[in-house]
Amino acid sequence: MKQHASNEKNYLQRLRHSAAHLLAAAVLQLYPDAKPTIGPAIDDGFYYDFDFPEPVGEAELAAIEQKMHALLSRWKEFSHREVSPKEARAQFARNAYKLELIDELDQQKEAITLYTSGAFTDLCRGGHVEKPSEELQHFKLLSVAGAYWRGSEKNSMLTRIYGTAFSSKKELDEYLQMKEEAKKRDHKVLGPQLDLFTFSELVGSGLPLWTPKGMVIRSELDNFVWQLRQEKGYQRVEIPHITKKDLYETSGHWDKFKDELFRIVTREGHEFAMKPMNCPHHTQIFARKPHSYREMPQRYANTTMVYRDEQSGELAGLSRVRSITQDDAHVFCRPSQIKEEMFKIWDIIDTFYSAVGFDLDLRISLSDPAEPKKYLGKRDDWLVAEATLREMADERGVEAQEVEGEAAFYGPKLDFMARDALGREWQVATIQLDMNMPERFDLYCINESGEKERVVMIHAAIMGAIERYLSILIEHYAGAFPVWLSPVQVKILPISDKFLEYAHSVEKTLQEQGVRVELDERSERLSAKIRDAQLEKTPYMLVVGEKEQADNSVAVRTREGGAQEVLALDSFVEQVVREISERA
Amino acid sequence: MKQHASNEKNYLQRLRHSAAHLLAAAVLQLYPDAKPTIGPAIDDGFYYDFDFPEPVGEAELAAIEQKMHALLSRWKEFSHREVSPKEARAQFARNAYKLELIDELDQQKEAITLYTSGAFTDLCRGGHVEKPSEELQHFKLLSVAGAYWRGSEKNSMLTRIYGTAFSSKKELDEYLQMKEEAKKRDHKVLGPQLDLFTFSELVGSGLPLWTPKGMVIRSELDNFVWQLRQEKGYQRVEIPHITKKDLYETSGHWDKFKDELFRIVTREGHEFAMKPMNCPHHTQIFARKPHSYREMPQRYANTTMVYRDEQSGELAGLSRVRSITQDDAHVFCRPSQIKEEMFKIWDIIDTFYSAVGFDLDLRISLSDPAEPKKYLGKRDDWLVAEATLREMADERGVEAQEVEGEAAFYGPKLDFMARDALGREWQVATIQLDMNMPERFDLYCINESGEKERVVMIHAAIMGAIERYLSILIEHYAGAFPVWLSPVQVKILPISDKFLEYAHSVEKTLQEQGVRVELDERSERLSAKIRDAQLEKTPYMLVVGEKEQADNSVAVRTREGGAQEVLALDSFVEQVVREISERA
Repeated sequence: MKQHASNEKNYLQRLRHSAAHLLAAAVLQLYPDAKPTIGPAIDDGFYYDFDFPEPVGEAELAAIEQKMHALLSRWKEFSHREVSPKEARAQFARNAYKLELIDELDQQKEAITLYTSGAFTDLCRGGHVEKPSEELQHFKLLSVAGAYWRGSEKNSMLTRIYGTAFSSKKELDEYLQMKEEAKKRDHKVLGPQLDLFTFSELVGSGLPLWTPKGMVIRSELDNFVWQLRQEKGYQRVEIPHITKKDLYETSGHWDKFKDELFRIVTREGHEFAMKPMNCPHHTQIFARKPHSYREMPQRYANTTMVYRDEQSGELAGLSRVRSITQDDAHVFCRPSQIKEEMFKIWDIIDTFYSAVGFDLDLRISLSDPAEPKKYLGKRDDWLVAEATLREMADERGVEAQEVEGEAAFYGPKLDFMARDALGREWQVATIQLDMNMPERFDLYCINESGEKERVVMIHAAIMGAIERYLSILIEHYAGAFPVWLSPVQVKILPISDKFLEYAHSVEKTLQEQGVRVELDERSERLSAKIRDAQLEKTPYMLVVGEKEQADNSVAVRTREGGAQEVLALDSFVEQVVREISERA
Repeated sequence: MKQHASNEKNYLQRLRHSAAHLLAAAVLQLYPDAKPTIGPAIDDGFYYDFDFPEPVGEAELAAIEQKMHALLSRWKEFSHREVSPKEARAQFARNAYKLELIDELDQQKEAITLYTSGAFTDLCRGGHVEKPSEELQHFKLLSVAGAYWRGSEKNSMLTRIYGTAFSSKKELDEYLQMKEEAKKRDHKVLGPQLDLFTFSELVGSGLPLWTPKGMVIRSELDNFVWQLRQEKGYQRVEIPHITKKDLYETSGHWDKFKDELFRIVTREGHEFAMKPMNCPHHTQIFARKPHSYREMPQRYANTTMVYRDEQSGELAGLSRVRSITQDDAHVFCRPSQIKEEMFKIWDIIDTFYSAVGFDLDLRISLSDPAEPKKYLGKRDDWLVAEATLREMADERGVEAQEVEGEAAFYGPKLDFMARDALGREWQVATIQLDMNMPERFDLYCINESGEKERVVMIHAAIMGAIERYLSILIEHYAGAFPVWLSPVQVKILPISDKFLEYAHSVEKTLQEQGVRVELDERSERLSAKIRDAQLEKTPYMLVVGEKEQADNSVAVRTREGGAQEVLALDSFVEQVVREISERA
């Protein structure tokens, strides 16, 4: 794990925000009646939202980009000046969006600044590169999308132009190549193509339906997590997906999750909600009876769906859904047991992620001292908890990035960031240290002296949201899952119907060893059968004909192509069974 | 399986309804200002609801019962006469409840009849025994409960007195003994006592929370069902717990389940519902792509929770809950495959229920020809489906009880009734033949001629609602589950702390063989440890002391008590592992 270069990140933000200015300048040259609104830098680029007098789509991007390059030579620097609200209003008299922003700055008594480069002046808070004409060479416009003004569907729809910029041509080219590769791996395309999940108009968006093949992958992953947890003394529990409002009033979720809660009023008029998290329910299992210190820790594991009322516009394939399966767990332990229990979870995370070939970076997600109201409980408890997480990283000799404001509302977290095959970073596993829920629900154990001792709660998810995790995994593997995860591990391809009987005996032998096998019984030509099995990304294809039948052998092909290798059936079975059990 | 004696059942109904009259007569003697309302026979007895001027509880039942016996000798017969509404109103002038019933009969132009025995006359439709003084000897009042007039919480609360009656003293005594035994086995008491599940005030009633021990039983049962299904070619699928209204408008559930649906309005104003059944979701998985006849049948298994907005007053332990886990499955097949697929399910049911020691009776649940509006689809399809079920029972040589009006709204069913250790009958497994959902969702496969062929849908649950099934199982076993189902299979009881090390090595040996084992490390006396393990109904207790440590043996006790037997540790391990794997 390694430290992130936050200076570099700040520079990229300034570079990209500068590029957004340049984009707006080019747009105004080509569409003098367009109204620029706002244009921030984002994670891997920038955008600018415009109100265009005419439709503008991706076909127009090349011309805009050309104009940007043409303007660039005159952008020697950004100059700025503070102006009065009146002056600002005069400058943007024909742009209602900017006027709205100026009114707000005026009301909040904030300074109003205008930034100019070349012939273009924008209302802006600043944050640019010093020499745009030199530094801003390597940009690219990427796509066009609709976006509501200020994100609200009550406002007018604007046109958002996305782009990106880097400080060198090499980095830009690498990024564009990665985007191209990512497009080929898009789980929204590959998932249904490999028949892993589906959506139904009648059921609704954001609510994936899991097909048999998708369920195989989900189950394999979840079983692996459970196996690792069981070895550490976890026990399974189960809970309903709804609760009375009362539970969330006590936990604080009613306030925090207000908009995202699916709410229900029963026929008797009681207020219920669907659970957006599992921790409050799990506290009620812990609280069912007194616990002696001898019984601590209690470790509850529960793979279950939570529900969040996401807005339709935010939904995207499996990345953002309304029904979210969490491989959740909560450990209730004594303060003296915190580190040991958190290290156990860390071990599980390390084992799990090394099996799927991800490198992990550690982030310590802290509270934001500037916004104490966002967090439950006492500041002192937070400082103790945050110090514990730092100590753990030190003890393991792992360099961690500390980020303020990324804590959960009940406690700080160790978040694990995975780097996929394309070098993209995803937040995956999380371990959260919570001294607040136990306080709110009055959770304790009876210690050696017969006294009540406040317990601590550790929240831990290994995959996190399984839907989102699978979207990452599908793209990481480009759908070619390792053998242990493949829905169909071996496909048998008889050369003709004459060898069906032998093919069936091969199928049976493999099934008896627990291998997931399919037999292509169609009367198609062998080349067609091979092509289809390759499209399905089946790891092994076994071609069987005259010779194989005579020798009790199989001609093995892999999805990567390459030479066909004839193996004794026994040897192949032994090899594939070992590969599966080792999760190779 | 055997035919039910429906004549006998009718007689018992008349007997018990007659007893309800006798109860009302006795009550009026003791409480002249009480207002009798209605008094029907029910499944295993009768009740009568009264509006009492003073509180009446179970303490008063003995006196009422005595009065019933005293009155009985004069109850030679029931005489009846039809009266005008006016006459009826005069007779019950001081009883507002009876006046309400009379008004309704009057409005519906129905005959009004009064039945008299002894000095007591009641408004009644009839259905009594001929010679009450002789036939009505063997009754017993059982309990008192509150009940709203006509079941609505808007009305006043009445006092319901429950009782039962039989045609012989022997039957009555057996019933009372069974009730006594059932009380000892009550899952609402035993479940929390054995720490299998819990309820939380904050989460709400009817929403059980499953503790680690309860989850072990749930998982063992569900894994067993899945193992049997997997052998028959089933595949797992998974679905969200909510859907847009549209799905249920198409399926017909929106109309049929109206009151019991938990409804949700999203923040964007869309109407959603929590699923009360899984079939509509599963149709959408089947419909995701065209299916060749070669791929048929498609068999989807899915253990998942459904939700029903039951009224608070109807909730009872695990027997009636709001979050219901179903071990559900749906087979989509060609019409020619119906019987084969249904027989496969029947095989699973037979294997599963013989493992838990239940005898099964078969019921063919048919549509009610008098109420065609209750059912979807064409009458002809129903007749075909119902005939198929009859043929199947014939082919298996099983006598079945046919019951009209017990079908699902989409198709007829084979329902399996289990008889528990107390001789009580419970509806458990079900196989349902559905030609309607496929029609409504336009589900088909492509047959050998390349044409669309309408498929059939078979709904099958082995346990049905796992919560209700577990309530039956807990009472059936009186909490003493067979070894394979026991949350803790073996408990190790060291005679003193000196033998803890050996005890740990025994624990480890058993754990390595997958046995669920607990070690009682407390410094209690051995007798206390044995008593606690017996209360927990642990099948095996292993006492270890000086001698056992020296011999590498264990002193085995069972929860049934009896002599302690010393076995070599190896022999015990071998025995318990075999017992578990054979589900003995």
